[in-house]
Amino acid sequence: MTNIIKKQTGAAFRIKKGQRLKVTDPEGQQVSDMVLFNAEDTREKISSGKTLDFEESILISRGNFLWSNRSRKMMEILEDTNGRNDFLLAPCSPETFQIMYNNPHYHPSCFENLYTNLSQYDIAPDDIPTAFNIFMNVQFDKNGKLSVDPPLSKPGDFVLFEAKMDLIVALTACSAEDSNNGSFKPILYEVMD
Amino acid sequence: MTNIIKKQTGAAFRIKKGQRLKVTDPEGQQVSDMVLFNAEDTREKISSGKTLDFEESILISRGNFLWSNRSRKMMEILEDTNGRNDFLLAPCSPETFQIMYNNPHYHPSCFENLYTNLSQYDIAPDDIPTAFNIFMNVQFDKNGKLSVDPPLSKPGDFVLFEAKMDLIVALTACSAEDSNNGSFKPILYEVMD
Repeated sequence: MTNIIKKQTGAAFRIKKGQRLKVTDPEGQQVSDMVLFNAEDTREKISSGKTLDFEESILISRGNFLWSNRSRKMMEILEDTNGRNDFLLAPCSPETFQIMYNNPHYHPSCFENLYTNLSQYDIAPDDIPTAFNIFMNVQFDKNGKLSVDPPLSKPGDFVLFEAKMDLIVALTACSAEDSNNGSFKPILYEVMD
Repeated sequence: MTNIIKKQTGAAFRIKKGQRLKVTDPEGQQVSDMVLFNAEDTREKISSGKTLDFEESILISRGNFLWSNRSRKMMEILEDTNGRNDFLLAPCSPETFQIMYNNPHYHPSCFENLYTNLSQYDIAPDDIPTAFNIFMNVQFDKNGKLSVDPPLSKPGDFVLFEAKMDLIVALTACSAEDSNNGSFKPILYEVMD
């Protein structure tokens, strides 16, 4: 069954070890932030620092694993038709729009969409780590300067993950203008045995 | 007063908003991992994702701020005589040596030295985020491939920070062979009004 995450919203759900998760960008140029928690003990969670360390790469794609703060494998990336994901930048939050966009008004954010959907699992805002930013196109130069460019994903591009433990997964359809080339679109996901 | 962190150990202490912290590599080629917590509410802590996002750079040095998971400034870097620090990789942990060094035996680690020193503040191992790795020389190529090279720091190199809120600070003299060119040395720190 394909589930739709409407533009600028999110979802959270459980998947079992061995199940696969397919995250699809149906219209192209749309980012999805993903965080993972051990379903049996949510103090264990996805870790950018551990993943970049064990995978020895800033770019994480097919063949790489996503690791937890307890140095255990949470997911493997089986397929990645786009091939560009970010694991450097935190989910956009209300402060992102205040500080980086100079926008003092309310703005939907991945951070809000993650914590509101994760509250059913007793996961608090402060518990949310740096997300794995699927389809996000963060470029870096040799001096480390970062730029957020339009996603390279085309309609129908997807990333296929396999769970290596029972997981709580949260996903968003990202709410930040600069990350999605200025327009907001849905994200699709499917859980398969 | 200059405090000595002996090789392969750590320390934790409080500093007040406005105080400065000087971290010195007395012998050269020695990394120090640093984590920060809001002294009033330790659920607020240093965030690599927020820092790289707001500072728009992988490399963090003089003039940059270290940001919290609540999007607030924790420290400013006033001086950095070496100029190379890492904010990508997690602190070395027992699993680092098992998985990356293929060493099944006990090995001291920054992770252990952080959590044992932070336990006095009721901060648990799972609460420790990706550290700011002072003097650590992580190189990346245009494809995102990471390598841990010998530190570029010379004897006496230091980084000077200013606290932007009351903080609990933990520091180590890093225990990983590859990060310190194969030998373990002390780290010095000084808190100044």
